Amino acid sequence: MKFEVLTLFPEMFDTLNHSILKKAQQQNIIEINTINIRDFSTNKHRKVDDYPYGGGAGMVMQPEPIYNAIDFIVQKFGYKPYTIMMSPRGKRFEQKDAKRLLEKKHIVLLCGHYEGIDERVLEIVDEEISIGDFVLTGGEIASMAIIDCISRIVPGVLPKEESYQDESFYDGLLEYPQYTRPEVFRGMKVPDVLLSGHHENIRKWRKYQSLKITLEKRPDLLQKKLLTDEEKKMLMDIKNSKKID
Amino acid sequence: MKFEVLTLFPEMFDTLNHSILKKAQQQNIIEINTINIRDFSTNKHRKVDDYPYGGGAGMVMQPEPIYNAIDFIVQKFGYKPYTIMMSPRGKRFEQKDAKRLLEKKHIVLLCGHYEGIDERVLEIVDEEISIGDFVLTGGEIASMAIIDCISRIVPGVLPKEESYQDESFYDGLLEYPQYTRPEVFRGMKVPDVLLSGHHENIRKWRKYQSLKITLEKRPDLLQKKLLTDEEKKMLMDIKNSKKID
Repeated sequence: MKFEVLTLFPEMFDTLNHSILKKAQQQNIIEINTINIRDFSTNKHRKVDDYPYGGGAGMVMQPEPIYNAIDFIVQKFGYKPYTIMMSPRGKRFEQKDAKRLLEKKHIVLLCGHYEGIDERVLEIVDEEISIGDFVLTGGEIASMAIIDCISRIVPGVLPKEESYQDESFYDGLLEYPQYTRPEVFRGMKVPDVLLSGHHENIRKWRKYQSLKITLEKRPDLLQKKLLTDEEKKMLMDIKNSKKID
Repeated sequence: MKFEVLTLFPEMFDTLNHSILKKAQQQNIIEINTINIRDFSTNKHRKVDDYPYGGGAGMVMQPEPIYNAIDFIVQKFGYKPYTIMMSPRGKRFEQKDAKRLLEKKHIVLLCGHYEGIDERVLEIVDEEISIGDFVLTGGEIASMAIIDCISRIVPGVLPKEESYQDESFYDGLLEYPQYTRPEVFRGMKVPDVLLSGHHENIRKWRKYQSLKITLEKRPDLLQKKLLTDEEKKMLMDIKNSKKID
């Protein structure tokens, strides 16, 4: 999986050089290239923004350096990778979008700044994406989130034993509670079932807890999910406040 | 506004040392301290994670180093700042949460990693927050988004003329299209109204475009918004496909 990030702050992306993404880059499973939009300014002061037509606060990123940067990418690879602009107007990114974008194999992420980007840039953008209903200084942090999320599902990035299939949102439920050493910490004890060694009981307890937490915190997720018979029965029990442990 | 970030990867937060957040930190308007959870391990190998009780893939962060880190913060400041854990289970962060958290003045952001965090950590957490329905390697990128979003609304962080009030989600609408130099770029021209100098027409055009884009891309936002009479009329016009420019 390859990412080309168009940004005014390429150094910000050093932050992706940690943990599993560092290893994945070293092993060439993923490639993250940053391109400084400023390098494509034709202005002698390397200016990339100007006042908005029609007035108003802030500066707007000019179309020319961005088009030039995209032209450079097209020339380098011989094709135009799928181009995403980070934008509050965009579709809200979800786990299923990571799967979809993984198929593109090579994507460009355009990070805006200032008050916005000249609207004419949309002509070369395939998709606008937002990570949520909140305002960020630029598209950089949002891009990082998307790169991280997509990279995690690239085969070979996560160690085999750490299947991402267990994680929240993969099976449409929030994750069950996890416990590790020590068994008793500041008076709080690990639930007995987890110490029992009884795999089937542990599996049931975890499923039950997942359903319970999802029902409490994100009931909307349950409505989107196809429930198994076991899950339907457990949900009934939860609603009737029965306990299985 | 002060942030204490508990993380296993403090270096990742160098990324917040750019653009307006850099200036705001230099001017002491905001303060971002990172605390390495590993420094609070009592294990001689500085271990902070262990296998999950009950089995399963991945490693779980142990409660002890996290409690110790929080104890350190409490001792340093003489109180426990509002403590947020980044978690896929959390409430989805929105712009109105930035306003709410700004009132806390001092917050701790706890970033998880590995398969999860020992559930007993929740006892010292005031709130769980998620930035969206997608899975990230750790809470770091999500924390950065939250720090950026809150910091932008701290008085003095944005230059006065760049009021954040104009931005998407502040008035409940997506932003209108922006244009800057050149007037004609690769055959695409800036809309005439923006060159007219007629302030009232420009205001109306922008409002109309904001409503149109919001209706197209995020009709859910319109349902949450209290519309003015002008906005109601414009929306009717948009639905009847009339144009005002």
